Amino acid sequence: MPPWHYVGSALAVEFEADPKAAAAFLPEGLELHSGRCAAYFVEWQYASETGLEYLDPIRSQYRETIVLLSARFEGSAVAYCPFIWVDQDVALMRGLVQGWPKQIGSTWITRAYDLPSKAAPIVGPGGRFGATLSVKDRRLMEAQVTLRELTETPPSPSFARAVNTRHFPELVAGKHDLPAVHELVQLKSRDVQVSPIWKGEAAMEIFDHPYLELPDLRPTAVGAGYRFSFALTVDDLIPLRDLRTPV
Amino acid sequence: MPPWHYVGSALAVEFEADPKAAAAFLPEGLELHSGRCAAYFVEWQYASETGLEYLDPIRSQYRETIVLLSARFEGSAVAYCPFIWVDQDVALMRGLVQGWPKQIGSTWITRAYDLPSKAAPIVGPGGRFGATLSVKDRRLMEAQVTLRELTETPPSPSFARAVNTRHFPELVAGKHDLPAVHELVQLKSRDVQVSPIWKGEAAMEIFDHPYLELPDLRPTAVGAGYRFSFALTVDDLIPLRDLRTPV
Amino acid sequence: MPPWHYVGSALAVEFEADPKAAAAFLPEGLELHSGRCAAYFVEWQYASETGLEYLDPIRSQYRETIVLLSARFEGSAVAYCPFIWVDQDVALMRGLVQGWPKQIGSTWITRAYDLPSKAAPIVGPGGRFGATLSVKDRRLMEAQVTLRELTETPPSPSFARAVNTRHFPELVAGKHDLPAVHELVQLKSRDVQVSPIWKGEAAMEIFDHPYLELPDLRPTAVGAGYRFSFALTVDDLIPLRDLRTPV
Amino acid sequence: MPPWHYVGSALAVEFEADPKAAAAFLPEGLELHSGRCAAYFVEWQYASETGLEYLDPIRSQYRETIVLLSARFEGSAVAYCPFIWVDQDVALMRGLVQGWPKQIGSTWITRAYDLPSKAAPIVGPGGRFGATLSVKDRRLMEAQVTLRELTETPPSPSFARAVNTRHFPELVAGKHDLPAVHELVQLKSRDVQVSPIWKGEAAMEIFDHPYLELPDLRPTAVGAGYRFSFALTVDDLIPLRDLRTPV
Repeated sequence: MPPWHYVGSALAVEFEADPKAAAAFLPEGLELHSGRCAAYFVEWQYASETGLEYLDPIRSQYRETIVLLSARFEGSAVAYCPFIWVDQDVALMRGLVQGWPKQIGSTWITRAYDLPSKAAPIVGPGGRFGATLSVKDRRLMEAQVTLRELTETPPSPSFARAVNTRHFPELVAGKHDLPAVHELVQLKSRDVQVSPIWKGEAAMEIFDHPYLELPDLRPTAVGAGYRFSFALTVDDLIPLRDLRTPV
Repeated sequence: MPPWHYVGSALAVEFEADPKAAAAFLPEGLELHSGRCAAYFVEWQYASETGLEYLDPIRSQYRETIVLLSARFEGSAVAYCPFIWVDQDVALMRGLVQGWPKQIGSTWITRAYDLPSKAAPIVGPGGRFGATLSVKDRRLMEAQVTLRELTETPPSPSFARAVNTRHFPELVAGKHDLPAVHELVQLKSRDVQVSPIWKGEAAMEIFDHPYLELPDLRPTAVGAGYRFSFALTVDDLIPLRDLRTPV
Repeated sequence: MPPWHYVGSALAVEFEADPKAAAAFLPEGLELHSGRCAAYFVEWQYASETGLEYLDPIRSQYRETIVLLSARFEGSAVAYCPFIWVDQDVALMRGLVQGWPKQIGSTWITRAYDLPSKAAPIVGPGGRFGATLSVKDRRLMEAQVTLRELTETPPSPSFARAVNTRHFPELVAGKHDLPAVHELVQLKSRDVQVSPIWKGEAAMEIFDHPYLELPDLRPTAVGAGYRFSFALTVDDLIPLRDLRTPV
Repeated sequence: MPPWHYVGSALAVEFEADPKAAAAFLPEGLELHSGRCAAYFVEWQYASETGLEYLDPIRSQYRETIVLLSARFEGSAVAYCPFIWVDQDVALMRGLVQGWPKQIGSTWITRAYDLPSKAAPIVGPGGRFGATLSVKDRRLMEAQVTLRELTETPPSPSFARAVNTRHFPELVAGKHDLPAVHELVQLKSRDVQVSPIWKGEAAMEIFDHPYLELPDLRPTAVGAGYRFSFALTVDDLIPLRDLRTPV
């Protein structure tokens, strides 16, 4: 039961993808704004209103990779997520309810520590951070960011403005194409907080894959990289449009 | 190849175990100092001298649970480790070389973030942290610490003073009891750094297990809990005594 | 897209639970038939119609623990599943569409081999098989079966006759109690095949858990154990009743 | 403590590698026999003499990928293992004692069932089996075998004739190059049993990797594929030669 409280530490990379390929991932009701995409690699911790789940942290912690496209809904800029991977089932289920098309994947992100060491980067100019995503035993993405300076501007597209597709299929014979739920929704977070944002240059690769379509979004150019933390609470959603074909 | 650089964030709990049970874990050459034990739950990051392994963090990060006993070697206070669990094979192998009797286990530790959130404790008075250990799908240990104040004194016994047993068995028939390597060694870290140390009250449980002997060290009393970070480099070892039975 | 083809090797245990506790898990529309329950531990392999997923077996194989209650729907005996755990996300998603309330869990089952060895039981009188379930690093169930004889009668309740609850929540504020989908459905498998069924005596334990309700079904008596394989195809479902509160 | 009893079901592929690359993996004392190699993907179950570990199967089951080279020791044909990956620490430790250079890796192998199903291959002409290896979230090997006929001849090189290097490093400063144990040993299994052996055509790929040297053995040609089971007991070893540099 919501509200759901989250805090996460993110490494993010802005990149450009082929606009035609990006547009092909958009649902009805959204149009492409530009080929600008962003990948977020996040180390999350979660708690319900009274649960203190983080004291039994296997219930509370998870790592996630989120890919976002730049889209428009009725003229306003929004973000749309064609791919997202987490490593815990509870996060997957809460995500499905919000329309995040979550699958299970393995995300790793360089950590910073509050001590100087050859085993960790500094959070400051020259600090180098990496992140990787693997799905079903195959490496899918690798990113590296070298921090240079503080910025006031978070990466874009931002998942603060995400529009998602909630979807629940039908299985009755003859109705496999008529989902029970298929609707465009706008996420609504509250109590959002953001740490100071470090920005720098980035490198990123998306690898070939035999059946996932993520490589269609392979970067044609890689932009800036970012590192920051943020916290938010979710307990609401704005329905935008029912996408089911009228029967 | 050493040197090996480490930085870790630790939750630690001091506790008392039955002295007879604790003494039974000591190798020849060590005697028990007291029933005082400590459990450390650590989230590590590692790098070799030039490897920057933390940029591909699955190579560099691991979580570890360490149990230490209070022992004496030739009159000096030392720590001895009867049980230690990690979640990455590379850490296991480097540990075996140092005499840590590492097995694979699953450790989880509450994380702190640099933002206020219901999803994370504060690093300060009242902040509550938890840690758990599971081995082969069974929960073995659970600990909770509530931070109260800063302290100058790290938990004791400390693994800065660990004496280990390096061991490599023989498999030739008739020689299974005559290990190829069996020696008492003193660990030697350099470039050790410690963050400010938070201290508070703690709770800890060790659960029954059908074949592991860890429950012999079940707490008869639980002392203080701690949270801190530390960094160190390993590339040396002091041999103390050959423990092989003369043939 | 269905059809979905499955083949599995199962260890099953019949047991009795407190009827009041069992009845509390039933949705509206079902009534309890008896306190008789069954636990199935299954090692599955899956393929779509043309996918040959089993050639990249991480896409195709999964292990599952299923708990079934004996219920009635409009006078007919059916099975109802309050708990089911799998270890792969694709199986979880296909399960949700069928109304199986799948969570991620770790199931292990003794294997038989076609060679005599001290490392494996025989599939025949005296062969001993074990199975375990763990969820989020806690052991939840352990079962053992000693085979005695072949039988024509599969364990009961049987998931061939399962009635499930398809459920997809609403997240819009003020509507958290009004799910978008909440319906009773009857599973419909085709091309079902069953191997010879071995039967014998069984032991089973359900362990305490801090927040899962499975221990409410702790066995008051343990009945027979079974080992067998079966194959089936799923591409249809019979809707029985819409369970949503009329708005 | 030995004896250690094992039973496994294997998919194997014979292939040719560049002889110069293969020879570079051999320790002093062995010379290359030919560029012929074999990869074995094995689903194992283990038991100690009295332990019945397979009743708590997470203690007993593991999957393994083994790469073998064709070598000679004092004129006799032997097999030498440059790479081996398992997914359980207990198997890793028992392997190290035998000189297997085990690391942790993720192996998946198609299963056969005793029922006809689109979700499983037949064990007979036309049955198609796959196997994959991944290490630290990267896919390293993929193999496929199509069964054609029974054969009396097992794949070659065979790990029945393995010669291994037992190795335990020194960590005392200045002695990192003088291992405490470094010796050539001949494995000695007893009570070996082999099932009927199916043979057919095979395909196999070894993928690029940023730091593992396995791709040096990339197939220049792929030979036959095999599927069979075998059982054996280990409790002895023949020391062949001490490889430590005289001090």
